[in-house]
Amino acid sequence: MTSMALRSISAAQLRERLVGTPLTTPVYADLAERVRLLVVDGRLGGGVRLPSERELAESLSLSRSTIAAAYEALRTAGYLQARRGAGNFATIPHARVVSTHLPGPLGEEDGSIGMTCASGSAPAGLAAAYAGAAARLPELLASTGYLPDGLLDLRVALAGWFTARGLPTDPGQLVVTNGALSALNVVARCLLVPGDRVLAETPTYSNAIEALRAQPIRLAGYPLPASGWDPVELEQTLGQVRPALSYLVPDFHNPTGAWMSEELRPQVAGAVRRAGSRLLVDETLVELALDGGAPRTPLAAYAPGAVTIGSASKAFWSGLRIGWIRAPHDLVRPLIETRAAMDLGAAPFEQLVVAGLLTDGAHVLAEQRTRLRRQRDHLAGRLRATFPTWTFTVPAGGLTLWVQLPDEASSRLAGLAHDHGVLVTPGPRFHVDGGGERHLRLPFTAGEAVLTEAVRRLEHAWADVQTRRPGGVRRRSDPLALSA
Amino acid sequence: MTSMALRSISAAQLRERLVGTPLTTPVYADLAERVRLLVVDGRLGGGVRLPSERELAESLSLSRSTIAAAYEALRTAGYLQARRGAGNFATIPHARVVSTHLPGPLGEEDGSIGMTCASGSAPAGLAAAYAGAAARLPELLASTGYLPDGLLDLRVALAGWFTARGLPTDPGQLVVTNGALSALNVVARCLLVPGDRVLAETPTYSNAIEALRAQPIRLAGYPLPASGWDPVELEQTLGQVRPALSYLVPDFHNPTGAWMSEELRPQVAGAVRRAGSRLLVDETLVELALDGGAPRTPLAAYAPGAVTIGSASKAFWSGLRIGWIRAPHDLVRPLIETRAAMDLGAAPFEQLVVAGLLTDGAHVLAEQRTRLRRQRDHLAGRLRATFPTWTFTVPAGGLTLWVQLPDEASSRLAGLAHDHGVLVTPGPRFHVDGGGERHLRLPFTAGEAVLTEAVRRLEHAWADVQTRRPGGVRRRSDPLALSA
Repeated sequence: MTSMALRSISAAQLRERLVGTPLTTPVYADLAERVRLLVVDGRLGGGVRLPSERELAESLSLSRSTIAAAYEALRTAGYLQARRGAGNFATIPHARVVSTHLPGPLGEEDGSIGMTCASGSAPAGLAAAYAGAAARLPELLASTGYLPDGLLDLRVALAGWFTARGLPTDPGQLVVTNGALSALNVVARCLLVPGDRVLAETPTYSNAIEALRAQPIRLAGYPLPASGWDPVELEQTLGQVRPALSYLVPDFHNPTGAWMSEELRPQVAGAVRRAGSRLLVDETLVELALDGGAPRTPLAAYAPGAVTIGSASKAFWSGLRIGWIRAPHDLVRPLIETRAAMDLGAAPFEQLVVAGLLTDGAHVLAEQRTRLRRQRDHLAGRLRATFPTWTFTVPAGGLTLWVQLPDEASSRLAGLAHDHGVLVTPGPRFHVDGGGERHLRLPFTAGEAVLTEAVRRLEHAWADVQTRRPGGVRRRSDPLALSA
Repeated sequence: MTSMALRSISAAQLRERLVGTPLTTPVYADLAERVRLLVVDGRLGGGVRLPSERELAESLSLSRSTIAAAYEALRTAGYLQARRGAGNFATIPHARVVSTHLPGPLGEEDGSIGMTCASGSAPAGLAAAYAGAAARLPELLASTGYLPDGLLDLRVALAGWFTARGLPTDPGQLVVTNGALSALNVVARCLLVPGDRVLAETPTYSNAIEALRAQPIRLAGYPLPASGWDPVELEQTLGQVRPALSYLVPDFHNPTGAWMSEELRPQVAGAVRRAGSRLLVDETLVELALDGGAPRTPLAAYAPGAVTIGSASKAFWSGLRIGWIRAPHDLVRPLIETRAAMDLGAAPFEQLVVAGLLTDGAHVLAEQRTRLRRQRDHLAGRLRATFPTWTFTVPAGGLTLWVQLPDEASSRLAGLAHDHGVLVTPGPRFHVDGGGERHLRLPFTAGEAVLTEAVRRLEHAWADVQTRRPGGVRRRSDPLALSA
């Protein structure tokens, strides 16, 4: 229910995040602004204790009065809260955390372009995959259709897929679910007890945040550096949070697109293991390496107790609604018993379709990757040409660009974008401990023409952001719309 | 998490449930046995306070010492617990509440007959329904396939179906889910807050009990009389429990098969409304009237705030994995937002299949009913011929017979039945407040030959129950198997 942050940051750690370029005069104001941006970007989570004025002054070789003035400015602006005898804690002014509305697909009936769901139409090969499964429909119809663990054909295909990738797996270690989000719900309900703490990268997949927050647990963020996972920082966060479960997305991380290197994998898994935490790996996007590169070992291969979740939604098509859990043998029975109280299984026909795609769908996946690469590059090109002040790293895979805006305008932009007929999810929805107003997730799952038009509409919305007062945003009835 | 019972039963109410036939000598022992059977059958839930010795003595025109001896016998046997200054409370000895194992479909690989799931193979018309939907697959594949509210075609068809049955409904009041159990989970997570109380009939659908117990709420039972709902008793239970939500199954109630009469419907809905409770109606079996009879008005038609859940699993085929929620307009948005954190929608292809069946599947439903009627009558005949001491009422619809055994042997029978190659769900799994050892749920969803063989195996198991000591049941590793 509540969010619990990394509890403190040392003066040395804060200095490292603050001093890329020399401080400008007045130094206190520049320092305050840099700290504020760390908070805005979720690099300093809400509730984290800052070093004392004295410690930070020493670390930065500045006078204590300069630090005091910077902290005072941050407190006045609402980004820092002093607690008597306890120190100064990062806070995020409330209005900035809450998105103004939930944009998404349900709003599209009015002609809006939905840029909230990172999913597109099915690749051409899907029709043939459905036809292939239809040939075996009579076998299914002769059964009850209840498959609490999943269709054996699919579990065999999945076991082969995991094993070939370097994570030996037998079909008895797999539970088929209604997509990866459903898998996350089953795992959370089965493995967590009230009061448990769960660690997740921040930013992370917005629906995972919602799903975990629906449990009676405390969710804490590990601020993911722009350069990717830092095992030392992660280990420190783990030590402070002591999470029962650590939810990580190592492959084309949603929303940033980060891809954990091969060398980092044993280090990250080791840090989680040493903290006594169980690793929950989300591999939803693992098949979407768009620029080639050697396949990387599943993170769970370095962590014997790890649970891995995945989905056919991104590699093939979201409308399949098939995901899975891969778990150690001792967890499989409790997982199935838990899921049996939530739903009674995924649709067996789509399980047949996915089993076929896993064994015989390499060309479908290749088609999917080619299309996504083209769309990614198209969107990146349009954004560069249209928004010279927006910055982003083109990810090596996945489905989204994680754009940094020059201002804390993500929610305002999302609100105005809706007026201009394009729905985007504001950055704060991807943040565990607050922050995110300087970022925007833009999926490249639509075709080029739609992406071009979406950028054109965003251009108008951005012009409005630049000219209107922050308080001048017109409020409207919220469209009901959801992200994915 | 915990179960909370009807808190007290008056002397007059208890007398009514006790004295069908004259008491035999020794009176105290007969009285104790009758109270014990009320507890065993769930008609007196665990935790319910019994009348004082004096009150019951007056009510039954017996001496107080007779009542005292009966209560003493019940305490000795573990069915009554005295709490100083508070009175005597019904309890169920622990070992009788817990089923010895979870029987079900996963155990069938060894050649066992699964009688735990009330679902069979698909009726012949299903193949054509799939083929019909396949013709429209290209439309679906051109979309993202994410439908958090559900396919419009299906919601339109469902709205028409509800409206024709006497509950005016528009498509905006419907949310499509992965089956009725998934619908129950969405409703529970959306509408309940920790500490809420929920009332359910006892016995009731076992997976509903599991799903509700997974919420941080208190579940209480309304003991469903063998003759069906009693509005006066229900109102009294509602007054004592004060539930936020009242989960009722008025149409071919699972597992008893009871069908709420047309006259009772406004009375039951009125009692729930007066108690300030929201009605949650489970219509999963509503289409399975097997002996004809005029259709009855949806219970929600008498309760404006009611939420109704339903499913295509029983009328058509479980492998469709399509259910729905029908709710007042103001609840639809919160329900969709809640489900979006649980899964991202049901499979769109099966939604097309079900939309087709609702508009054009009357012959499929007729085939389903004919088959079920034949199988019901076959099972009833075999049971009567094989087990003269077992009693049951043939239900007017639904999928199961709710058999009363002459002994409290349901869990023992289930355990021994597994040894003989037939899996059955013991009665206690359907009970909210304990009890159920005298009942067994037997679905008639399999074909006649399978039912004949299942009864033959049960006959052997029952012979074992009769000859073995209760403590002599061989323990084995539990097969992982689930009910539905």
